[in-house]
Amino acid sequence: MDKLREECGVFGIFSKERSALANDVYYALFALQHRGQSSCGIVVNDDGVFNSYCDNGLVGDVFTTERLSSLGEGNAAVGHVRYGAEAGSASRSNAQPLVVDHVKGRLAIAHNGSLINYAELREELELEGKIFQSDGDAEVIAYEIIRQRLTSKSIEEAVSRAMDRLKGAYSLVVMSPSKIVVARDKHGFRPLCYGTTERGDFVAASESCALDAVGATLVGDVEPGEILVFDRNGCRSIRDHCGEVKKSLCVFEFVYFARPDSVVDGSAVHIARQRAGAFLALEHPVNADVVIGVPDSGIDAAIGYARQSGIPYGVGLLKNKYIGRTFIAPVQKVREDKVRIKLNPIASTVAGKRVILIDDSIVRGTTSARIVKLLREAGATEIHMRISSPPFLNPCYYGTDIASRDVLIAHNYSIEEIAKIIGVDSLGYLSIENVKKIADRCNKDDFCTACFDNIYPTEEPSGRSRNRYDRKLSEKEGN
Amino acid sequence: MDKLREECGVFGIFSKERSALANDVYYALFALQHRGQSSCGIVVNDDGVFNSYCDNGLVGDVFTTERLSSLGEGNAAVGHVRYGAEAGSASRSNAQPLVVDHVKGRLAIAHNGSLINYAELREELELEGKIFQSDGDAEVIAYEIIRQRLTSKSIEEAVSRAMDRLKGAYSLVVMSPSKIVVARDKHGFRPLCYGTTERGDFVAASESCALDAVGATLVGDVEPGEILVFDRNGCRSIRDHCGEVKKSLCVFEFVYFARPDSVVDGSAVHIARQRAGAFLALEHPVNADVVIGVPDSGIDAAIGYARQSGIPYGVGLLKNKYIGRTFIAPVQKVREDKVRIKLNPIASTVAGKRVILIDDSIVRGTTSARIVKLLREAGATEIHMRISSPPFLNPCYYGTDIASRDVLIAHNYSIEEIAKIIGVDSLGYLSIENVKKIADRCNKDDFCTACFDNIYPTEEPSGRSRNRYDRKLSEKEGN
Amino acid sequence: MDKLREECGVFGIFSKERSALANDVYYALFALQHRGQSSCGIVVNDDGVFNSYCDNGLVGDVFTTERLSSLGEGNAAVGHVRYGAEAGSASRSNAQPLVVDHVKGRLAIAHNGSLINYAELREELELEGKIFQSDGDAEVIAYEIIRQRLTSKSIEEAVSRAMDRLKGAYSLVVMSPSKIVVARDKHGFRPLCYGTTERGDFVAASESCALDAVGATLVGDVEPGEILVFDRNGCRSIRDHCGEVKKSLCVFEFVYFARPDSVVDGSAVHIARQRAGAFLALEHPVNADVVIGVPDSGIDAAIGYARQSGIPYGVGLLKNKYIGRTFIAPVQKVREDKVRIKLNPIASTVAGKRVILIDDSIVRGTTSARIVKLLREAGATEIHMRISSPPFLNPCYYGTDIASRDVLIAHNYSIEEIAKIIGVDSLGYLSIENVKKIADRCNKDDFCTACFDNIYPTEEPSGRSRNRYDRKLSEKEGN
Amino acid sequence: MDKLREECGVFGIFSKERSALANDVYYALFALQHRGQSSCGIVVNDDGVFNSYCDNGLVGDVFTTERLSSLGEGNAAVGHVRYGAEAGSASRSNAQPLVVDHVKGRLAIAHNGSLINYAELREELELEGKIFQSDGDAEVIAYEIIRQRLTSKSIEEAVSRAMDRLKGAYSLVVMSPSKIVVARDKHGFRPLCYGTTERGDFVAASESCALDAVGATLVGDVEPGEILVFDRNGCRSIRDHCGEVKKSLCVFEFVYFARPDSVVDGSAVHIARQRAGAFLALEHPVNADVVIGVPDSGIDAAIGYARQSGIPYGVGLLKNKYIGRTFIAPVQKVREDKVRIKLNPIASTVAGKRVILIDDSIVRGTTSARIVKLLREAGATEIHMRISSPPFLNPCYYGTDIASRDVLIAHNYSIEEIAKIIGVDSLGYLSIENVKKIADRCNKDDFCTACFDNIYPTEEPSGRSRNRYDRKLSEKEGN
Repeated sequence: MDKLREECGVFGIFSKERSALANDVYYALFALQHRGQSSCGIVVNDDGVFNSYCDNGLVGDVFTTERLSSLGEGNAAVGHVRYGAEAGSASRSNAQPLVVDHVKGRLAIAHNGSLINYAELREELELEGKIFQSDGDAEVIAYEIIRQRLTSKSIEEAVSRAMDRLKGAYSLVVMSPSKIVVARDKHGFRPLCYGTTERGDFVAASESCALDAVGATLVGDVEPGEILVFDRNGCRSIRDHCGEVKKSLCVFEFVYFARPDSVVDGSAVHIARQRAGAFLALEHPVNADVVIGVPDSGIDAAIGYARQSGIPYGVGLLKNKYIGRTFIAPVQKVREDKVRIKLNPIASTVAGKRVILIDDSIVRGTTSARIVKLLREAGATEIHMRISSPPFLNPCYYGTDIASRDVLIAHNYSIEEIAKIIGVDSLGYLSIENVKKIADRCNKDDFCTACFDNIYPTEEPSGRSRNRYDRKLSEKEGN
Repeated sequence: MDKLREECGVFGIFSKERSALANDVYYALFALQHRGQSSCGIVVNDDGVFNSYCDNGLVGDVFTTERLSSLGEGNAAVGHVRYGAEAGSASRSNAQPLVVDHVKGRLAIAHNGSLINYAELREELELEGKIFQSDGDAEVIAYEIIRQRLTSKSIEEAVSRAMDRLKGAYSLVVMSPSKIVVARDKHGFRPLCYGTTERGDFVAASESCALDAVGATLVGDVEPGEILVFDRNGCRSIRDHCGEVKKSLCVFEFVYFARPDSVVDGSAVHIARQRAGAFLALEHPVNADVVIGVPDSGIDAAIGYARQSGIPYGVGLLKNKYIGRTFIAPVQKVREDKVRIKLNPIASTVAGKRVILIDDSIVRGTTSARIVKLLREAGATEIHMRISSPPFLNPCYYGTDIASRDVLIAHNYSIEEIAKIIGVDSLGYLSIENVKKIADRCNKDDFCTACFDNIYPTEEPSGRSRNRYDRKLSEKEGN
Repeated sequence: MDKLREECGVFGIFSKERSALANDVYYALFALQHRGQSSCGIVVNDDGVFNSYCDNGLVGDVFTTERLSSLGEGNAAVGHVRYGAEAGSASRSNAQPLVVDHVKGRLAIAHNGSLINYAELREELELEGKIFQSDGDAEVIAYEIIRQRLTSKSIEEAVSRAMDRLKGAYSLVVMSPSKIVVARDKHGFRPLCYGTTERGDFVAASESCALDAVGATLVGDVEPGEILVFDRNGCRSIRDHCGEVKKSLCVFEFVYFARPDSVVDGSAVHIARQRAGAFLALEHPVNADVVIGVPDSGIDAAIGYARQSGIPYGVGLLKNKYIGRTFIAPVQKVREDKVRIKLNPIASTVAGKRVILIDDSIVRGTTSARIVKLLREAGATEIHMRISSPPFLNPCYYGTDIASRDVLIAHNYSIEEIAKIIGVDSLGYLSIENVKKIADRCNKDDFCTACFDNIYPTEEPSGRSRNRYDRKLSEKEGN
Repeated sequence: MDKLREECGVFGIFSKERSALANDVYYALFALQHRGQSSCGIVVNDDGVFNSYCDNGLVGDVFTTERLSSLGEGNAAVGHVRYGAEAGSASRSNAQPLVVDHVKGRLAIAHNGSLINYAELREELELEGKIFQSDGDAEVIAYEIIRQRLTSKSIEEAVSRAMDRLKGAYSLVVMSPSKIVVARDKHGFRPLCYGTTERGDFVAASESCALDAVGATLVGDVEPGEILVFDRNGCRSIRDHCGEVKKSLCVFEFVYFARPDSVVDGSAVHIARQRAGAFLALEHPVNADVVIGVPDSGIDAAIGYARQSGIPYGVGLLKNKYIGRTFIAPVQKVREDKVRIKLNPIASTVAGKRVILIDDSIVRGTTSARIVKLLREAGATEIHMRISSPPFLNPCYYGTDIASRDVLIAHNYSIEEIAKIIGVDSLGYLSIENVKKIADRCNKDDFCTACFDNIYPTEEPSGRSRNRYDRKLSEKEGN
């Protein structure tokens, strides 16, 4: 797979009325499915009894009617979708939400992000005799919250105090027997928003599209460092950690991760992608007959490029919408590039034409090369590739799988060389300066762009914590 | 479901070499899946032994790796995808290809279309002591071919003689132990094309996208009344029935049924849809800010409308690509229209805008009304709906499920009334004159437009054959 | 597998009241499951509408709650379990009951047995232009019944007239829109009995254990050549064909096929097996310490042997009751005979003991040799094997899979040689004379013992019909 | 369900060679399946990497070929089968083996038994900030071992020191990265044995039948309080805790729980059951015609009773061997006792006879009453029930589900009353004195018989630990 993957999506709902909240979480997780397709889980709080089900697989496969109804009713619930390396998933389940019992009760935790001091915290905990049943952040976060809980008056105070020890990216939804506590790390690396429903429920989610899915209205974003508490008294904000450090929202949420119909930190994602296309047209103009996008993620930027350049937008590639997890890939290597199942060029759009081809990013380059070959065979006379983000040059420590420089084509080759490798007549990337401007309602300094410019908002992980990122990479290489 | 459904897709391949042809059929059926999602089947001919598997379900669900490999190798194979009412499917299997033994050997038959004299033929056969294990056309066609086969020198002669008795729409792929015979009815109601692969295999398919899927090159279309024979001597055409009657290709193949990347009877489907949009812009212009399409089928026409009108094209509705057969629909009726799982409006595209909304057709109007409501809630100030085909007024007897006038909104209401029912500011349909012109390489008189203008290319079915259409309708109503 | 397999079990029920009869058939098929484990099916007659479901697999796997309830209610129903070679089952479904439409209505047919003139009848039918969708007897039987139906006043008359053309073994349950017709071939090769329920339903089944399963009371056996008609007027017998030929019930039904709790043609199967053991003790006495049976089928005869001989009965082998179709056999050949999963000797029963080991038959001898080895390892000092039937020497044409002489160990070796091959100290088979006496309420001349004595009650199949038996064998060899 | 259920079965294997040990565990778990049918799991140690898979379900359903091969190779492995209330299983997984990481490495734990000081230990752990992801003993045991591990030189030392804190019943198989440590509680409540394979592997299992299943030879039993260490240096015994307290093996292992082909603490289970039958014949003789057993567990005692009394043994009840988890129970209450699917009486054995019916125990009495009714309908003239164990009067705290006095029929009624309730002519239980003598190689004082005589080998659990037993009961009642 030549695509970056987000690590997770989180969702929580608190209602004054008891109802089958698992259904709401189910719809929300469907809307967040693009953020994680490896495993998913739902926990329903029925007056302190937590009924939960987590498993590997897509939401629609894991949750049958029976599973959902077995979760019963409750007045609070949390859910999670997760992307994770398949290899280890049989042996060490990192599926979330994590449910744990402790001396003062019970917690369910849904987490999106990545701690940079995971190994240091875990080592400290292990020395205290604590045991670990996964290698995920959530278990460390649970221990840290519970450590504080022993001497705190409330779960939200425990979360607030734990935040001083947790470093890196985390968007959390924590459910106690009587509350839901929502927290976003001080840098605000990953999105997190909240809203209300007509009957007065409070909901929080990684993206606003999950609020739409349950018929809730977006109230706003959880600010970097902010804690929200949903309970019988309503919604309360704790801002002790707000403003402690510079905001560093991952700009790639706008470029690729988030869904186009979401609004992240005030900016519409769809608009941001069209703006990225428009900036690209300004930065890398070229004479051509048609602008096409690689479906689905290059479509919006292609429309933006077309509008800005005045060159007509066209549909040049058709994606087979029936290809799912069950599809059996062609076995005969030799015929592979003749067989066009997943993506078929529309010859009537590209034959005899000079084509501008828009995609959001290039990771290894293999997929791009294959698409370019298809378009040439379909008769495209020139192909000018435009990428709606800058080249990937550095690893990400904040919850995506841009894991190592070695694998990144842009780290190893010049732009001219890449153009030659993937077979295009010209190639242009969006500049770092402009990618910071694509979100129209955000401040251009509010972004983390470390993967492009090597400027990390935190110290880089070292020692065992660093090894963790390298290990992740090698596992993926091994696939 | 507020969508018309095609009845079937067919595919056949003949090779001089023995290989795992089930894989090729599998890829082809994936490409034809849009033509039928109820059941599918593959038959592989291994030197006269026919290994087959058919079942209800999507291609990706029915055919696992084991199923495919259990079909073994062979030098000819046929495949089929089918849409059909679910109700009776457990008790009476109409799944195809149908495999039958007869005195001179064995046949596999894959069929797309609908016979208007089914009941008359079946009655005659039953009086001869013949038995029926389904209520599908294929069994009657099999009997008629075999009736002729008893006194014919070849299977192709038997097919040719049977064509004098079969009335209505049929695109057939028939496999005997040594040949594949491909035949299209004299009117050419349904598409059927053929091609070759690099190693010299001959393939036939309902649409050219299935040829792309197996890496074959399109040679041309099977002409109305034409019979093609694939065997060890190559490909041979029998044109005895060509030109007997006026060509009457279903125009709705261009509007909706066929895949945009297919070429049908020489015309590119994608181009045809853009032309439909362009004609619409000329027939029904309106002042607006953005043109959007209902995904997926309205997108191409929206782009055509935008280009012709100069009004910008935008993405106004996002379809959740994870919603599949496993999705559990919201149970609570009251909340249904608040919950936006399958389709979510992109507010940043439509808020505060005058929107032109393009769809390919309106059947009952319920889905359109729901979409319009979503767009209004997302802030659209005006909604002008444009339909890239004329209003449905009459039933179809040639293989689609436009079954009865009663259910068709356009049969019961004026255009102004429909506009009011679905809640749009204005509504415009493409004219019959222009719909005949959307396929740029076809003659405008070569189409069947009976569902729009009541001009049927054949006599209308009567008696028991007519009852069959009415029964189909009532079954669907009962769902 | 070193076991003979019965071909089928049939069941039918007719009620004056409409109810969910699929449940009754389901319980009955569970009771008949030992007669066929490859496929099963149920057809419910709801006032002329036949709702059916058939599939490969065990009753418990094929029929889920949903499947059963989808069959709805009715006042008549038929069911079938079937054993069949797996090889061809994907391509040519022989699953029953077969449902067919004909000019005078509809039939469902469930059949146990084997026609010896199948090929002759089929050829005649094919020459009339009839087509075949399976290679099973049921389709030929359907055609023959319907051929007669065209000129008969009733379905029972058609069945009666068809019986003059059908040669060989058949126990039939035929359902028309208004009746159930039950028929047993003139020789009575396979068992068939009937009974009534408390509410007055009539039921027919291959064995009386299926009547117990639905709470019905056994009335009696369908006599050779007899036809029973169940309809709104009650139960009626047609005896036109009774007594036309000598009765020839398969004696192996008592030895192995039937369930011990069944009563077949008046004799209790369990008693017959104990008597077989007692005869064995008289024919082949030996000094020993314990008598054990190979579970499950050797147990009854072992008890009979023990009682007759005065040597204590013991449990010497334990069968793992959790081993089912899902069990994955040991892959490493070398370790196979060390691993004892399916059958484990009970050392405390056999260690240091002279053991008499009872089984019902020896086909190839491989399983017996393996069991003997296990018992030796567990410490048995002597092993005397006794078989509760005579040696298999000839093929069966009447519905079991004793297909060819070549595979039968007794056809190729003397008893002394067999004893050496399987590693026992002595070996004794029941005599033909005594096997005819095991059923205490049956006449000793009423049995078919052709597989033992080569005396066939009918002509042996010839030409194409004969090839059919040979082909079956080679398919099995190929497995 | 009117049957007692064991809580668990454990298995471990250590090999000097690396191989696909998951297969061995798989076969062993099949042999132990009778000890737990709710969930199962396997962990393979591949040089410190623990590959594991646990799920709810039977071994044959959970472990497909793919699952097994995904566990890869290794030189040590552990496995577990478990019985547990279904209710909570979705939300709180207690499936084992439990795999945990700690500061000095990694552990996998498989446990059979029940701690009587669970709640006290857990409370202490929670106060130290430890979290719990299940409510099973294994997690507490893991914490206690790891608590000791921090200051121990070896894992076996840690296990030994933990044993001073763990009270109650536990048969443990613990796997560290380099060893397998096997331990049995000081009372030896649950069985635990070990052996070797031909290639020198060491194996430990709850029962010797699991050793047979993998082709291993039984060396002996792990003694009460004994610890065995399997590592590259061979097998070593640590006997520090041996002899600290009186041995108290659960006598019901011989009566019902263990498999008849197992040898437990030197005594063959099958022999023990026959002896129980023989004692019964001496204690409760009666004039009768036949002795039958309730399958499967009453068969052995019935044979023993028959031998001692001289009354013939017979097969009076047939169990349908196809009834599995998929079977759908009859819905219509009224017909339930007429329908005989699971168990059918063999009339030929019991009709007109005075029957002695042997079963191993009576819990609630419902099943016994139903069986007696079936036998009467089949014609039994007298029914004398004999039970091969004393009446249950007290709860068990050591790993079975005899949870509360309220539910036990013998606690609430006299023997005469019970006879009347279940409808027998006479009823006799084995005496406590004799049940202690059934295992011929065991000392009669070496047993726990608390459920019969209220003499508990340990203090009874109190406070929160006691509530745990009561809660378990109420969950079961709620089903």
